[in-house]
Amino acid sequence: MLDEKRVRRVFGEMEERGLTQMMVSDPNAIFWLTGKWIFPGERFLGLLLRLNRPAVLYVNILFQFEEEIGVEKVYFSDTDDIVPLWKNEIDPQQKLGIDKVMPSKFLLMMMENNVAAGYTGGSIAIDLTRQVKDEREQELMRRSSRINDAAMERFVKLVVPGVSEIEIAEQLLPIYKSLGAQKYSFDPIVSFGAHAADPHHMPDGTVLQEGDCVLFDVGCVADNYCSDMTRTFFYKREPSERDRLVYETVLKANRAAEQMLRPGIVLSTVDKTARDIIEAEGFGPYFTHRLGHFIGIEDHEYGDVSLANQSVTRAGNTHSIEPGIYLPGEMGVRIEDLVLITQNGHEVLNSYPKDLEVIG
Amino acid sequence: MLDEKRVRRVFGEMEERGLTQMMVSDPNAIFWLTGKWIFPGERFLGLLLRLNRPAVLYVNILFQFEEEIGVEKVYFSDTDDIVPLWKNEIDPQQKLGIDKVMPSKFLLMMMENNVAAGYTGGSIAIDLTRQVKDEREQELMRRSSRINDAAMERFVKLVVPGVSEIEIAEQLLPIYKSLGAQKYSFDPIVSFGAHAADPHHMPDGTVLQEGDCVLFDVGCVADNYCSDMTRTFFYKREPSERDRLVYETVLKANRAAEQMLRPGIVLSTVDKTARDIIEAEGFGPYFTHRLGHFIGIEDHEYGDVSLANQSVTRAGNTHSIEPGIYLPGEMGVRIEDLVLITQNGHEVLNSYPKDLEVIG
Repeated sequence: MLDEKRVRRVFGEMEERGLTQMMVSDPNAIFWLTGKWIFPGERFLGLLLRLNRPAVLYVNILFQFEEEIGVEKVYFSDTDDIVPLWKNEIDPQQKLGIDKVMPSKFLLMMMENNVAAGYTGGSIAIDLTRQVKDEREQELMRRSSRINDAAMERFVKLVVPGVSEIEIAEQLLPIYKSLGAQKYSFDPIVSFGAHAADPHHMPDGTVLQEGDCVLFDVGCVADNYCSDMTRTFFYKREPSERDRLVYETVLKANRAAEQMLRPGIVLSTVDKTARDIIEAEGFGPYFTHRLGHFIGIEDHEYGDVSLANQSVTRAGNTHSIEPGIYLPGEMGVRIEDLVLITQNGHEVLNSYPKDLEVIG
Repeated sequence: MLDEKRVRRVFGEMEERGLTQMMVSDPNAIFWLTGKWIFPGERFLGLLLRLNRPAVLYVNILFQFEEEIGVEKVYFSDTDDIVPLWKNEIDPQQKLGIDKVMPSKFLLMMMENNVAAGYTGGSIAIDLTRQVKDEREQELMRRSSRINDAAMERFVKLVVPGVSEIEIAEQLLPIYKSLGAQKYSFDPIVSFGAHAADPHHMPDGTVLQEGDCVLFDVGCVADNYCSDMTRTFFYKREPSERDRLVYETVLKANRAAEQMLRPGIVLSTVDKTARDIIEAEGFGPYFTHRLGHFIGIEDHEYGDVSLANQSVTRAGNTHSIEPGIYLPGEMGVRIEDLVLITQNGHEVLNSYPKDLEVIG
């Protein structure tokens, strides 16, 4: 059902940008606004939001549905001309906000047929609103990360002699499901030893060796909300002095960044705090990505924690804090939590321990 | 490596449409042209094809790669301004063909910065070329369907007393993998009884009952090419007279449509041939979708076998033939093969038997 509170918040962002009408086509945004998932494939899907008139959902008849979701439905078939249906509802005297992911073929059709007075990016009005999770979303984010914590306890037990990365990875989904999640929020990363130096390594047949670092970057979707956590362990042997320094430096960066979080902090300074700690130990060149990304219904949502982002944190933001040090050909460590910005500070949504742990 | 033959065929289609330059952003099309898979997520990805100059690949530095693929690579980072990079290569005096799936945010950026003299849909030049599979693609399509045939033999053995749809569905992927496929080409449909009346039913916890029809609509991806086949069985009991008539009518429609296939046939007449057979038995209102879709690297590619499609078949086309009859609340039957149009006729790519089979 159309969430009137969320719609009103989006309207506020539209008004600030001089927009009176906007075509939303991202299935994630439509779910967030209406509670209804529709995946149209190559077909048109659009929720037309208008400041002073009811919302209209354009949806192919193949995806028709009975339930009322608080919007007028306009159905069309593969052989219908959709242009007159747009013209019935879109105000030709006004600019139309366009969803960033709407396929270009539909934008070109709108332009060729003059359905609006102009076209401009409109997603930002929704993206900025989605960045601030409401109470219900906050609770779902907490729950998804609680499942992820419980799952990590069981994942660690899969690290047994002779196992390969892919053999571990293939056991994770049933564990998530048994804990109440529906699916992965992204393909899990399980990396041994030097593979951990590639932040996006895909699990392969490499077999576990004593002394390996073992990195899990994993997350699930539970009730439509994502979790995402990374922990790095050492297998069977205490790490070398150097590897211990790598681990403790990443952990220090992780904790320092988290501790400074509260509303009103410039996001680039959060990245810089973590980066400075890593640079002070001489590992600066080996921390090769931004500190974090926003997350919610999607694993990567609009907004990041990077040196380039001068926006400030707002209560209700949920994002990752994930510093790492990657030594090519040798090893890598990343420690990642999700955090929620609260009215007075922050909550770390993950509780799986972060102190250096030798397993196996 | 850039496939020069395929590029030349695309150039032919571009020239017919007065296009000298085109930005290709669909990862499937880029793979088909270069052999390289790149999934950019929300980031820009574009292969600029130009009639008289080398191709240029725009790709985020996050996805950089070593190998030479016969194109000039232009890397950019998340903080770079991509507009000057476009302006370096795009001819501002000429129209630019735009990929149908390119996210609107990039098209709006191009327009605001006047990178070309105009913008027009360009994908059709690639879509029409991709419809005609070359020898290598034909062999890969045959192989993917051979795996699908072998898989179906094993899927039928999963239909045992007390099993649910979802329990069967969860066993399919390992079988595909053991036969040499990499993944599903789409989420498998396993429907018992009345669920088979919903052509897009998702497997759930419903338990098998004696007398149920059992519908499998399944396919895999092997070496990047898709298979897609549907078979409908009856469990334990001979079907009623009516259900037998439904089955035999669908089978007759399937065979009649396949038998007429050769180059130069108007696709709508193929749909009509199948539809007429179903209508003649009074089931017309219960055949609720088009007869088929084109397929290749993607499960659904440009083109379909429907009453609305006046294009003619060409040697090298691969598409489905999938008539069905759906009796709401009761049962449904669909029988689907993939076919390849050859110089003189056609090949049916699936060999799993189609005669009515009572299993269990």
